This record gives sequence, C-alpha cells and structure tokens, in this order.
Amino acid sequence: MSDRPLGLYTDLYELRMVDSFLRGSMTQPATFSLYVRPNPRRPWLVAGGLHAALDVIDRFTYGGDALDYLRQQGLSEQALQWLADFQPRGDITAVAEGTVVLANEPLLEITAPLPQAQLLEAAVINVVHLWTLIATKAARCALAAGDRTVVDFGMRRAHGLETSVHTAMAAYLGGCAATSNVEAGRRAGIPVVGTMAHSYIQAHDEELTAFRRFAADYPDSSVLLVDTYDTITGVRRAITVADELAARGHGLRGVRLDSGDLAELATIARKMLDDAGHTDVQVFASGGIDEHVIAELGDAPIDAFGVGTALTVSADEPAVDIAYKLVDYDGRPRAKYSEHKVLLPGAKQTFRQGGPDTDVLGCRDEDLPGRELLQPVCTDGKRHDQADLGAAQQRARSELAALPASWRSLEPFDAPPEPRISAALADLASRTHEAVMPT
Amino acid sequence: MSDRPLGLYTDLYELRMVDSFLRGSMTQPATFSLYVRPNPRRPWLVAGGLHAALDVIDRFTYGGDALDYLRQQGLSEQALQWLADFQPRGDITAVAEGTVVLANEPLLEITAPLPQAQLLEAAVINVVHLWTLIATKAARCALAAGDRTVVDFGMRRAHGLETSVHTAMAAYLGGCAATSNVEAGRRAGIPVVGTMAHSYIQAHDEELTAFRRFAADYPDSSVLLVDTYDTITGVRRAITVADELAARGHGLRGVRLDSGDLAELATIARKMLDDAGHTDVQVFASGGIDEHVIAELGDAPIDAFGVGTALTVSADEPAVDIAYKLVDYDGRPRAKYSEHKVLLPGAKQTFRQGGPDTDVLGCRDEDLPGRELLQPVCTDGKRHDQADLGAAQQRARSELAALPASWRSLEPFDAPPEPRISAALADLASRTHEAVMPT
Repeated sequence: MSDRPLGLYTDLYELRMVDSFLRGSMTQPATFSLYVRPNPRRPWLVAGGLHAALDVIDRFTYGGDALDYLRQQGLSEQALQWLADFQPRGDITAVAEGTVVLANEPLLEITAPLPQAQLLEAAVINVVHLWTLIATKAARCALAAGDRTVVDFGMRRAHGLETSVHTAMAAYLGGCAATSNVEAGRRAGIPVVGTMAHSYIQAHDEELTAFRRFAADYPDSSVLLVDTYDTITGVRRAITVADELAARGHGLRGVRLDSGDLAELATIARKMLDDAGHTDVQVFASGGIDEHVIAELGDAPIDAFGVGTALTVSADEPAVDIAYKLVDYDGRPRAKYSEHKVLLPGAKQTFRQGGPDTDVLGCRDEDLPGRELLQPVCTDGKRHDQADLGAAQQRARSELAALPASWRSLEPFDAPPEPRISAALADLASRTHEAVMPT
Repeated sequence: MSDRPLGLYTDLYELRMVDSFLRGSMTQPATFSLYVRPNPRRPWLVAGGLHAALDVIDRFTYGGDALDYLRQQGLSEQALQWLADFQPRGDITAVAEGTVVLANEPLLEITAPLPQAQLLEAAVINVVHLWTLIATKAARCALAAGDRTVVDFGMRRAHGLETSVHTAMAAYLGGCAATSNVEAGRRAGIPVVGTMAHSYIQAHDEELTAFRRFAADYPDSSVLLVDTYDTITGVRRAITVADELAARGHGLRGVRLDSGDLAELATIARKMLDDAGHTDVQVFASGGIDEHVIAELGDAPIDAFGVGTALTVSADEPAVDIAYKLVDYDGRPRAKYSEHKVLLPGAKQTFRQGGPDTDVLGCRDEDLPGRELLQPVCTDGKRHDQADLGAAQQRARSELAALPASWRSLEPFDAPPEPRISAALADLASRTHEAVMPT
C-alpha cells in the first residue's frame, strides 16, 4: 500500500450504492455495526485492528487518477464531486484493543451520513478482520503455552509483505513475545529474534564448522539449528560449541528443533545439555506448530515455540464471519432476515459485569449495570487516542486471564457462547421484524 | 507497503546469516530453488507472483532509518555497509506465470552471491506463495464452474488491503473473469463488477422502492439482491422492476441470491423469470461459495458465481508448504535431510513433453526431450520481460485444459503427482547424500 489516498480500496458496489444514495438524497445519519457471527472454532475473540482501521479511515480519500478511473466505471458527476470532497467524518465507538468479545458483540459502530458509513464498509471489515483473526490465534497459542514463550515466525507465509507486518503486530497484541519480522520490529517496537536457516549449515562443508562460525560471530546470542542432517548428532555438536563458548566466557543461547518428534527430541536434547552442564541453554521448537501441537507437547522441556504458518494465516480458521450491518437509518432501527442470519437492529452497547460470560448486549442508550465496552474513539472525525500496542497486549493478557476455565478449550464448541440480550433490545428486534417483513 | 525501500521486509535471521557469511568471506555464487512440497489438497498449482517477486527484488534496498534500526539489532558495521550498497543482482530463472507445476518442481531459482540470494528468501517466498495459492484456488473454482463465470468477491476478507489487490490479480490469473475490487481494477485493468448490499435495501422503507430506485439509477446494469427479507418475494418484486425497465426500453441485468438453498432458489427464480419473459435476466449466486459448492450445484441455472472468502484466503488450504532451499554453493551441490523432507540438490530444469503428467525433473544443464519450463527472467539484475496479466491468464487457461482428466478431482489425492526424476539428478542426489551425511 503506498502512501497515496486509499479510497479505491473498496468493492465497486459500495461506490454504486453511494452514488444511488446521493441521487436519492438519502444522506441522513446511519449506524453500521461490526461484529462476528457465532463460530464453534472461535468461541471468543481478541479484538484488534481498531486503530489500524482508524488510520485507514483517515486516509480514505480520492486523489490522483482515482476519479478518472471511477468516471470510466460509470459513476455520476454528482458522485465524483462528492468523492473529490470526501473527508471522513462521523462518530465511532469501539471496544478497546485487546478486549475479549463474543459473537454478535460489536467491535465497533460507525454513525455518519449514510453514503459515508456505507463507503467505509469493505475497508473497515478488512482491517479489523485480519487483526482480530490473528490476535485471537496468537492468544490461543499463548494460552496453550502457559509461561513458555511464543514467537511469531510467520513472515514468509503471511498473505502479503505488508500483511506480515500487521500479522506480527496482531500476534504481539494477542500474546506473542517477539517476532522474526524486522519491519514489524522497527515499526512497532516489537522485540525481534533470529536464529539460523538450514542453508547456513548447508553452505558450510561441515555442520560443526557452521556452528563454530555462527557462535564466533554471535558468542552470546546463538541459537543453533540442529536438524539439518541428524538431530542427535546436531545436538552433540552444539554441545561441543557450547563447551567452547563457555571456556571463552560466553554462552550458547539455545538449540532449535525444526522437525521430527519434537517432544522426544526435546527430552533427549534437554538431558544431553543438562548432562553436559548446560542447563542454561534453551530448547526452541519450530516447524508445524500451532496451539494444538503446543498442548500435545504437554510439559516437554521446550522453552520457546516459534509459530509460523499456522499463526500467520490462522490456518484452522483463516477467516471468521465478520459483518458490517446497517442497524439504524434516519432514526429508525433496521434489520434483515436472510436465512439463518438474523440481524439485531439498533445502535448497541455491551455491558460486562465480570468476565465475558457476564455480558449483556443491549441498546446503546440503555442504562444497565456493568462496564460499557464500546467507548467513543472518534467524534465528528476527530480521534480521541492513539494506538498503544504494549498497553493493548497487557489488556488482552488480563482479559484472557478472566476467561471462564471451560472457555479455554482448544476444541470446537458445540454451542459458542453469546451474550444475553437485554429486554429492551429483544423488544426492539421484535417490533422491527413486524414492521419490515413482507406480508 | 509504502514506496520506500523494502529491505526490512525479511526475517531477522536472514540478516544475521548475511552478516556471518560476509565476516567469513562466504560470497561465492549460490543457487536457491523455490518449490512446493507434495500436498494432497493441491496436487497441482498454477504458478503466480513471479513478476511481483521481481518487483519486490528491484526495491529490496536499505534506505532511510533502516540501517540505524539494524545497528540497534546488533548487525556489524561490515554488514551495514554491505546493505547500504546493496543492489539486487544475480540470475533468475522461472516458469512463466500461469504455468501448472507439480510438487518439487521449481517455480524459480536464484543464482547470486550467497549473502544476496540468502537475503531475498523470506520476501520472495512471501510473494510467490500468495499468488500461487490464490491463482490455484481460483483455477479450481473456474474448473468447477466450466463455462459459467466466476467473479472475485473477496476484497473484504483478504488478509490486508494491499493483499486484496494481489489476491484479485492472482484470482484473475487463475481464471476469474472479474473482481469487485476497485483498486485491482484500476491497477491491473481487470473488469470490475458491483451489485448491491443488504444495507441498500434496508435503508429504504420498502424493498420494491429500493429495487425501483437502483434500477432507475442503473437502468441497464442492475443486479438486484433478492434475499434481504424473503427470497421468493424478492424475485417477484425484481420481476416487477424488470417489467417496468422493459417497458422503458431498458433491461434488468440480474438477480443475486446470497443465502439459502442456492440450487433450489436458482431453479425457482429462473422459472419465475422465464415465465415472465425475462430469459435474459441472469441469476448470480454468492455467499459461502467455493469449488465444492459450485460442483454440488451441478447444472442449477446459475450464470455467475461470486466467490469471496473461500477464494481470497484459500480457505481449505490457506497456505502450502513452499520452500526456498540452497541447492548449490561454490560449485558444489547441497542438500539437507531433516526428517520427511529430503531436498534434491543442484540447479534444476523441468522438461515437459506433453501435459504436466509427462514432467521430468532434471539437472539444469541436462539435455532432455521436452519443453524447458524454467527460462531466464533476469540476468545480472536486468529483467527480460514485464508482467502481462492477460497473457498469463490465457496461459493458465490452456495449461488447465491440458490437465489429465483424473487430476481435475476436487477431492484430496491419496498420492499427489510428482515429476519423474532424471537419472542424472537421482545420481547427483545419491552422491550428495553420501558426501554430507554424518558418519
């Protein structure tokens, strides 16, 4: 993504609807609500991407050749003029980044003139979806790992280079301690880690020579990859190098296992290292790891997990059913009733009295007990705060600590939890249904 | 991704290895080979992203504050100076975009001084992986759809905004006829299409009013979404609008079904439209569609499929096991032998005598019958050609037409096909194994 205006990052139908709304003078305030539908594999989610979405909204304008292109696509001159002048405005409420949310609970709501709120749909979904997806996957890995470290190794299989930076940031938000991604480190201040690849070993004539050279170059921060030829032999050679480093007053940081039976190999490597007096040398594991593998590895003596592909693409659930729906226009609640997808009308608030199992989803102007999760983040286009990834990570950590024990399961839920619906919201839904369903 | 240099879009270990190679004067030519490992769910792949990777390589330099950041990360002054002067050079061979390849067949090979070829690993993998993944998914959808149209509707759930543009282009390469993504349309000249969202209907007090207004604004290009409240009622109202348009000398383009039993609803809608004399009004289907759904829909009267999430994230297989491996350094073939992942040494060529079922994987300098799939695309940093997405789409189409009938199955393969290995390559592999395995 260049630094130029982002207004073309949208579906054409948004622009055609905007055009039609303008021609019909349908410019009264509308509220759209962004939420995730129930999902057995993701019974709860770590909300992310809210500041990234605000960044995109700030840049959602039309410059350069954008209007010429849209003219070719058949947009009216009225719409083109409106787009040329477009500056995102409106009011946005959102849950704080790192908050655990449930299905149907809004992550954010935008209230703005209908054409504007419509226009932002695809871009806002895109950004919040990616961050929430990856933060949630990282949180699952971190929960499984307990007090052991999880590191994002997903740069090369993320869906795009710029996306790899966002997935690294979202993974950090969800609970990763570090990333291999240098640009993410630079941009967001995330700790960056790096070991070595098989090619480093292969380029040398002997594995031991490769280990010695790397250790000489990085005498206090070397993690040696031991599985290029034969893992046990590799560990033995790593111990030789650890001995040599220790004799010079330095220390090997760790060995990395990247294939094979990780639990068995970690146990053997740990014993070999301990027997040689290298109790401080850590065991890193990588290669095909996700939260399920971490759980299966149980208490195998592994100090850190490098999670790559499974994390960076959320492999078991590479997308969740996220929606951005019109819930109010011109002062009237709106809904739709496509099969199996009932939309609750009206601007909303989530009231949380304890953990997320106490949530009540109500109307925005209700006065119910509990913490109100949706807070103003933008008023008439002016943002109230800036992103703080470290604070968001802390928030996610405390939110996850408050999860009911039964919600920590990694297996799909039979019935994913949903918030209770307030009496007022239930009544509004009932009245809206009567009003709009065809007779 | 901004327009600034891209050198930080990498894993830290690449930079640490580069540093170590430089300190050890290990700068002889190295060849790395990029290929996908056998995958039951992706027995063949449509190669994509080769030109996008070349674009990234061209911009893989270090400017601005990059070097300061890398100094903080502990890189040596020698390495920082080398990076400051870094201009990608080297020789690259690649298969043409749109070529069908099998497991273990190189998509590209880079030959360059070891530190450079190493440095490019993560970024090149990232780009080629995404494009190949999505082009292949699109090809599967297009094969299932036969002569019906497949359109990319995935913008909002692509993993990132910029990625949505690349997935739209890769989907077009693989066989989609159009996209909803406006920026992709502008940038790559892909046809862009757009219908309407549920919110358009909801914002009006009556569905029929919404249909009438949209049809008035787009009298020859309206596709009406009919499932907001009740699909059959929606079709009936669309027919009313189609009658009104016809009376004014215009024509409704189509109706869109987005939920429910698509085969049943399409059949009913088709009959209703035909009975009303609107045989030209098309039936579009969207909502949860992938190649399997298209196949199950059989010959339901659907003219076009809008494929969103499943395509844009390759939902059933959101990543493939793509590798970039050192196969030759300083004139000697290299391999590795991690469990279950045997690496064939040496620079390679794929020889194709008919369809991909005739492929022989050999050494680069062998003289075997057949078309040589890997061709020079870059010599000493100078590119030989530029991207032509339309030509690549045509190539993919003819490659897919040459697939053996049994390879068109959408179900996972018991044993995905692999190329035959030439005698010379088998001999090289055997000799390399003897030379490097620990004794």
